[in-house]
Amino acid sequence: MTTRVQGTVYLVGAGPGAPDLLTIRAASLLAAADIVFHDALVNPHIVALAARAEKVAVGKRCGKHSTAQRFINKRLVDAARRYTVVVRLKGGDPLLFGRAQQEIAALEAAGIAYQVVPGVTAALAAGAAVATSLTQRGTVRSFAFATPRVGTGEDVSDWARGFASADAGAIYMGAGEAEAIAAALLRAGKPTSLPVAIVENASLPEERIFYTTLTQLTRFETEFTGPTLLLLGPQFTSRSAIAEVDERERCTDPSRRALG
Amino acid sequence: MTTRVQGTVYLVGAGPGAPDLLTIRAASLLAAADIVFHDALVNPHIVALAARAEKVAVGKRCGKHSTAQRFINKRLVDAARRYTVVVRLKGGDPLLFGRAQQEIAALEAAGIAYQVVPGVTAALAAGAAVATSLTQRGTVRSFAFATPRVGTGEDVSDWARGFASADAGAIYMGAGEAEAIAAALLRAGKPTSLPVAIVENASLPEERIFYTTLTQLTRFETEFTGPTLLLLGPQFTSRSAIAEVDERERCTDPSRRALG
Repeated sequence: MTTRVQGTVYLVGAGPGAPDLLTIRAASLLAAADIVFHDALVNPHIVALAARAEKVAVGKRCGKHSTAQRFINKRLVDAARRYTVVVRLKGGDPLLFGRAQQEIAALEAAGIAYQVVPGVTAALAAGAAVATSLTQRGTVRSFAFATPRVGTGEDVSDWARGFASADAGAIYMGAGEAEAIAAALLRAGKPTSLPVAIVENASLPEERIFYTTLTQLTRFETEFTGPTLLLLGPQFTSRSAIAEVDERERCTDPSRRALG
Repeated sequence: MTTRVQGTVYLVGAGPGAPDLLTIRAASLLAAADIVFHDALVNPHIVALAARAEKVAVGKRCGKHSTAQRFINKRLVDAARRYTVVVRLKGGDPLLFGRAQQEIAALEAAGIAYQVVPGVTAALAAGAAVATSLTQRGTVRSFAFATPRVGTGEDVSDWARGFASADAGAIYMGAGEAEAIAAALLRAGKPTSLPVAIVENASLPEERIFYTTLTQLTRFETEFTGPTLLLLGPQFTSRSAIAEVDERERCTDPSRRALG
């Protein structure tokens, strides 16, 4: 009789993109990993931290070939039967728009041990980029996260209703859907003048920030090539200090400080 | 004429509590810090990472003496004029319920360079504790964060209206307010049977999890002594795998795996 080796699957948040916004726990697990299954969009510098691991890209990249969820689930279970430390690396935090529940259900059904390691979600990095608090004392007391994106075969989402009632919010994976987003939020009662901060590639060197309003959102549609997050709420206007200079320069270059 | 030294203020998220859920960037900044102003509730093991820094506790601990925000703002500005690396360390992420905007405004007004370093917010650690995705594909498409807590002299908050419309959500700093929370959410249309997961000391060794419903919430009121987060939504029921065994044991002890 052979003793069956069985490992643990760690569902790990890779954070918003910058390798040093990974948690210490995530970095340790990557260093110890035997195999890593990572979303296609996770920064290659982060995947590379798994120095001794086999690395498997498993989608989902919007509009390109991606691995079916059922197949990912099966590979995680199989890997846990062969390896000690299995990492499933997801962009941001695993529990926000990450389809983690399907993988957790598969692991539980197969009796595989697992742990979830939280990460810095993109909205928080986008807020840091525009140096604007998501909640605002006394005025913005509820903040919502949503995505307009629906999977194949799913009903059209009524994400906008629940989202629009909060005082402010972040929209994930909204690139390419500006017109539908604006229309849905206007229907849900948001004003045409609602400030929107668009943050592309939050936390990365190629980060870009645009300020607009709900009705003007479509003007920026063609600008984006990287992952894009929308922040919507009364506080997301361009303060002069932020609007006039590049964010990184403003923060680090003392000669620009007078603009603050 | 003396050259005036002027440093940078880093508004840093300390994460949910566990020292290894700090980001790598936060750990590096703490190691480099000349002075650290930290919330009273930040884990002492994390504050201790600022080995060479002067450490100043600046509140806010609910119901105990805390430093006035205006005085904190002034101390940050003064410190940036004396030191190179000034860290303002806040629990979770600095931009969610952290009053960061007042500090940012004071720094901008004084022409002080600053950066925001995002962190893992408590709701994500609470979600990891119950191994339940905050969003759920096809059913929970919007997720809201709110707090019922209002500052001295502020209007009573109508946080519940914006919060209740989202498909699910997390309530921060809700300990001691179970009755008011339940009443406000029932008024806002949430069902009496709404599942609630209560996570105390998320990510710490003393973490505890309770499952209940909106109308039963007050039964648990006196249980909590540590920071408590409430997760509300259809998915936050106790799956047998999670309910029957301690979370840490379930994840790490192979002999309990059969319960999965």
